[in-house]
Amino acid sequence: MTLDIGVLGYRFMGKAHSNAMARLPMFFPDAPEINREVLVGRDEEALAEAAGRLGFSRTTTDPAEAIQEVDVFYNLGPNFVHPEYSIEALEAGVPVFCEKPLAPTLEGTEAMTEAYREAGVPAGCAFNYRFVPAIRYAKELIEGGEIGEIHHVRGRYLQDWLVDPEAPWSWRNDEELAGSGALGDLGAHTIDLARFLVGGRAGEITEVSGQLRTFVEERPTEDGETREVTVDDAYTAQAEFESGAMGSFEASRFATGHKNDHTIEIEGSKGSIKFSLERLNELEHLSEGSRGFETILVTDPEDPYIDHWWPPGHVIGWEHTFVHENYEFLSAVESGDEFEPSFEDGLATQRVLAAIEGSDASGERVSLD
Amino acid sequence: MTLDIGVLGYRFMGKAHSNAMARLPMFFPDAPEINREVLVGRDEEALAEAAGRLGFSRTTTDPAEAIQEVDVFYNLGPNFVHPEYSIEALEAGVPVFCEKPLAPTLEGTEAMTEAYREAGVPAGCAFNYRFVPAIRYAKELIEGGEIGEIHHVRGRYLQDWLVDPEAPWSWRNDEELAGSGALGDLGAHTIDLARFLVGGRAGEITEVSGQLRTFVEERPTEDGETREVTVDDAYTAQAEFESGAMGSFEASRFATGHKNDHTIEIEGSKGSIKFSLERLNELEHLSEGSRGFETILVTDPEDPYIDHWWPPGHVIGWEHTFVHENYEFLSAVESGDEFEPSFEDGLATQRVLAAIEGSDASGERVSLD
Amino acid sequence: MTLDIGVLGYRFMGKAHSNAMARLPMFFPDAPEINREVLVGRDEEALAEAAGRLGFSRTTTDPAEAIQEVDVFYNLGPNFVHPEYSIEALEAGVPVFCEKPLAPTLEGTEAMTEAYREAGVPAGCAFNYRFVPAIRYAKELIEGGEIGEIHHVRGRYLQDWLVDPEAPWSWRNDEELAGSGALGDLGAHTIDLARFLVGGRAGEITEVSGQLRTFVEERPTEDGETREVTVDDAYTAQAEFESGAMGSFEASRFATGHKNDHTIEIEGSKGSIKFSLERLNELEHLSEGSRGFETILVTDPEDPYIDHWWPPGHVIGWEHTFVHENYEFLSAVESGDEFEPSFEDGLATQRVLAAIEGSDASGERVSLD
Amino acid sequence: MTLDIGVLGYRFMGKAHSNAMARLPMFFPDAPEINREVLVGRDEEALAEAAGRLGFSRTTTDPAEAIQEVDVFYNLGPNFVHPEYSIEALEAGVPVFCEKPLAPTLEGTEAMTEAYREAGVPAGCAFNYRFVPAIRYAKELIEGGEIGEIHHVRGRYLQDWLVDPEAPWSWRNDEELAGSGALGDLGAHTIDLARFLVGGRAGEITEVSGQLRTFVEERPTEDGETREVTVDDAYTAQAEFESGAMGSFEASRFATGHKNDHTIEIEGSKGSIKFSLERLNELEHLSEGSRGFETILVTDPEDPYIDHWWPPGHVIGWEHTFVHENYEFLSAVESGDEFEPSFEDGLATQRVLAAIEGSDASGERVSLD
Repeated sequence: MTLDIGVLGYRFMGKAHSNAMARLPMFFPDAPEINREVLVGRDEEALAEAAGRLGFSRTTTDPAEAIQEVDVFYNLGPNFVHPEYSIEALEAGVPVFCEKPLAPTLEGTEAMTEAYREAGVPAGCAFNYRFVPAIRYAKELIEGGEIGEIHHVRGRYLQDWLVDPEAPWSWRNDEELAGSGALGDLGAHTIDLARFLVGGRAGEITEVSGQLRTFVEERPTEDGETREVTVDDAYTAQAEFESGAMGSFEASRFATGHKNDHTIEIEGSKGSIKFSLERLNELEHLSEGSRGFETILVTDPEDPYIDHWWPPGHVIGWEHTFVHENYEFLSAVESGDEFEPSFEDGLATQRVLAAIEGSDASGERVSLD
Repeated sequence: MTLDIGVLGYRFMGKAHSNAMARLPMFFPDAPEINREVLVGRDEEALAEAAGRLGFSRTTTDPAEAIQEVDVFYNLGPNFVHPEYSIEALEAGVPVFCEKPLAPTLEGTEAMTEAYREAGVPAGCAFNYRFVPAIRYAKELIEGGEIGEIHHVRGRYLQDWLVDPEAPWSWRNDEELAGSGALGDLGAHTIDLARFLVGGRAGEITEVSGQLRTFVEERPTEDGETREVTVDDAYTAQAEFESGAMGSFEASRFATGHKNDHTIEIEGSKGSIKFSLERLNELEHLSEGSRGFETILVTDPEDPYIDHWWPPGHVIGWEHTFVHENYEFLSAVESGDEFEPSFEDGLATQRVLAAIEGSDASGERVSLD
Repeated sequence: MTLDIGVLGYRFMGKAHSNAMARLPMFFPDAPEINREVLVGRDEEALAEAAGRLGFSRTTTDPAEAIQEVDVFYNLGPNFVHPEYSIEALEAGVPVFCEKPLAPTLEGTEAMTEAYREAGVPAGCAFNYRFVPAIRYAKELIEGGEIGEIHHVRGRYLQDWLVDPEAPWSWRNDEELAGSGALGDLGAHTIDLARFLVGGRAGEITEVSGQLRTFVEERPTEDGETREVTVDDAYTAQAEFESGAMGSFEASRFATGHKNDHTIEIEGSKGSIKFSLERLNELEHLSEGSRGFETILVTDPEDPYIDHWWPPGHVIGWEHTFVHENYEFLSAVESGDEFEPSFEDGLATQRVLAAIEGSDASGERVSLD
Repeated sequence: MTLDIGVLGYRFMGKAHSNAMARLPMFFPDAPEINREVLVGRDEEALAEAAGRLGFSRTTTDPAEAIQEVDVFYNLGPNFVHPEYSIEALEAGVPVFCEKPLAPTLEGTEAMTEAYREAGVPAGCAFNYRFVPAIRYAKELIEGGEIGEIHHVRGRYLQDWLVDPEAPWSWRNDEELAGSGALGDLGAHTIDLARFLVGGRAGEITEVSGQLRTFVEERPTEDGETREVTVDDAYTAQAEFESGAMGSFEASRFATGHKNDHTIEIEGSKGSIKFSLERLNELEHLSEGSRGFETILVTDPEDPYIDHWWPPGHVIGWEHTFVHENYEFLSAVESGDEFEPSFEDGLATQRVLAAIEGSDASGERVSLD
């Protein structure tokens, strides 16, 4: 069986997932056979160019038409198009892979998750950083008890592409289209990784305080006007986990000098770990009885996914995380197994984000029962 | 004129300050002449041994007697002895140098500061990290406009000496004696550095949310019993500065693998800096127009205090910060100039700590008008 | 026009180049169209499996047959098969892309280069590290005069996969098949990068002293026997460049804890650079007037090749260097332009390696006029 | 008994040793009692100022007079004054502590060592880096078998204070006065550390090849003239140890961006270590069975010398190495025990330096039987 894939969106995420699909046969030969069938968008000319380059058989400007004809639907457009077409696909029994955050609003995310629960097919939320080998290896350490009882979780995602007040307005600056700013775009990744690494029931966040900030209130548009920025440029939050662990989170698009610095640190009763996305092949691990953090190059054949790639020390890149997640997601579609992170994970994270926004507004700590 | 110095406390801080005083003549020949006159403590035997080793002329177990006879009084005992004798000295017109945090309670700190205001002599709060050359250099960069408008201040102070539940109970675990735990012991340093670096009115913290945590509820004492831990093992806080900058703070005695990791990061509209106490000779600086953080060894002759020491690249240690602060404090005593950080700075920090505790208790963001 | 490609070798290098070719259409749409036509090897079964996986239309066990029918011939087998088939292809006017080092002997390399000179078609030597964006960026800095007159070049390539005396014997341990050990396999890369970065006539090495060492004299084979190791496990060399710069080189397969640590450092009268392959997205650059090395993430759109990939901070991997070199080589084949590094560069490096071996044997410094 | 100390030299090294002596009572209370009796120099005015600042009882311009009256003689002047007065002191039965390298010539060093052998009193060569806690800890690891059989020793000492051609001429640029340049000044430290760490008979160097370079041939003097540079600005060397280990060494005063970068790396069959003087509180250690280098802060109470100083993570500085070596040397003087490194170690290192110079001149590998 060959899976016909329909993909909505052909820019950054469209390219990242198309590349991932294209690489499966050579590196993951047991992945399901797929056909990049149809690319969906609005601008016919750009769409045609992208379809040729990204290896799609055809294009359409009608998502509904695509959904009807494919075996799997990828929803990679801006956040505001996530709910409608994801729900439409799920109601048609078509598995969905959707970029994060799932929707601009908590209500939208809840509706999507409800559709997933009723559909009985996989609906994945594309938290790709779960598929970094070093993160997977950290997860193994934690599950194996190497870190012990977790006391601290510290996560931050720092970028600097908006620090210039003249950086242009885009849909990512608009609450209607994006839902939130650094919080949803970057913070969603951090919260998901924290939940994933702490793990299970213990990893659920039960309480948060948060603050959001918009440093630049309006930005220039392409037509020489300015437009209001209605989302946050940065957030900080402190959290309590079900396990009692303390969490501390932050993201910014104003962190001058940081390009894509997604750093997670966890300290437990027996050991600790540190990870930074800008050096994604490395994990720093303080193991019980040792005197300092080991800087581990997570590129050995025994390391997660690495036997598919290259010999030790021949590092992989950011895009490889998409290959791994596409492999897992498409395998789940084929086998009918569960895929995680699912829409349930997308919703759990969205609830935390909403609580952070709520706390920012009310000035009170917010409980997530 | 030779200043007669009286020092209360002969353990960790007593040793650090005595060493600093002893080194002044060789490295800061223009420092005031001083005489390590009297060492104050309760255990006569230990006191005698310490006085010999630390170079004091005599000892006493009566602080009041010492205060009457000295030109300067150093209050380096546990926090709970700070208020009484500091106030007594100031009321006698004797300049005081007191370890941080100033007092176990905000009320105690306010009374000390009131005494300072009325005394008209220097009263220094020993926030020694203001005297790290790399921190001083960072301050120069900020004051010189190199960082621009500050958006983010991130500070953390991580240690791990209490992660073992069998680590013994000490006065640092007792609210009566210490006031608070990681918050007052470590967080005080971080809050002071943040205020110092952001600077002036802009650097005052106007709002905080905080959470405190005690991971281990009781600890063994020397006599085979256990005793309750009544202070925090860790705190996190998020803050707003007068300038609009966002702050994010944390300290822990449970951060496995971190020995003395006091890290401060600041990002502004033009540049950024990073500092870590475990590599205290270094400052990372992202300057305007450059592509990455420079790792600067702050050991050039033009760097703060360095011309007193060694050639470039010949690094100094933690204890040197005490030499610098003693030099500045004693020079201020001699000249009658203001010394900063003073008790006013100690109080400003204590107010932030109290607000963090208040927020932890109430679950609400706390304003410091 | 579509170029039919024949590839000899389907293991490590075969996979690396096949992947590179497969990725060109999506990321380098202006690359020549190619057809992975024929895969050449000896083991028919393994060959068939590899051809399917790597995307080749057909297979053959007869290199001569392949050479006759293709537009470009890739020689990616063990070193000892490089000369015969590369020369055969060049004599047939077929452009050749050959892995390094070009041949087990200097004579073999000279014959290959002679064939290249007479053929009038591109013959590339696959020194892929010239195509790391950070290395290309360093080259731009040097050519732009940012480093000034170069005083020091320091290169080392450290691995540890042979430190276990029970690590199995392979063709890489045999002088007949491989030519040399760490010297040819790893040192060739370092010498080529040094020549490339210093650049032009100034970058030629004029004198060397060298020492080679074999730490383990025999190793187990698959059939339970042992076989002699006839190549070096490690070398060191010191060199003089035409420009007067001093060189210091080293490689080892016994450097415990180093997986793929290819580090190059250059210091000049105005600035310096450092590069390490295990962090290949980064370049450390000390620029004139600055106080420390900047750690630069070479992932900006202006950086070499990066606009083909992902946004700033989204790091690439080791394999991307093959995409870049295949793009450049195939474009040169199509356009008829020169391609560098060519067999001339392969020969220049081989001469240095031979001089190092000569110096090890004679105990004398060797001049390369 | 109080030891009367005479010190020749009051600049950089004079200050470093005087400070070390001054700090002994507070931190090493079991050290011998000493009296900084007499400071020796030529410029009476500068001498008087220094004696006051450095805590000496009196001064003299006559070394012979000082030698007659003291219990210990420190020879800290420029290299060319080392032999005469060291020999004079030893012949008078006065223990000597002499800065490195021992003499400008091998003959001078041999004469000094001969005097030491006959004197029967300690004669120390001030290789202070043996007294860095992290180096001592590395030595313990090696002696404890943690590194296994050593394959590689890599040492470099990089500075950049002469890269400017207008940097002034000093005695360090003159062969008569200094003996050699980077080789003797910096390389002596590296060779000594290599011998110390590899240890014993195995640690002796048996063969070297070397190259020296002078990049700037003459330099300005204070009186507006220029004077010839007759020593090397940089050297590289490769070596064989008695044990079969390979050595690779380098030093430079032209390594732009490196201030005091003395880096030693050792790889063995079981583990590896890395040390860099600019981060002298740290040791990187790859232990058997671990996956990466641990970054160890060598500041725990069990670490060499640390229990005399501060709690974990409270780092020490460069000058502390002098306190440790003075403690050990003076204790040996008092007890009559052997002190290492002695003049024998100074001579062994000098022989290697001379062989490197010889190899540079002859172009041949030089054997040190």
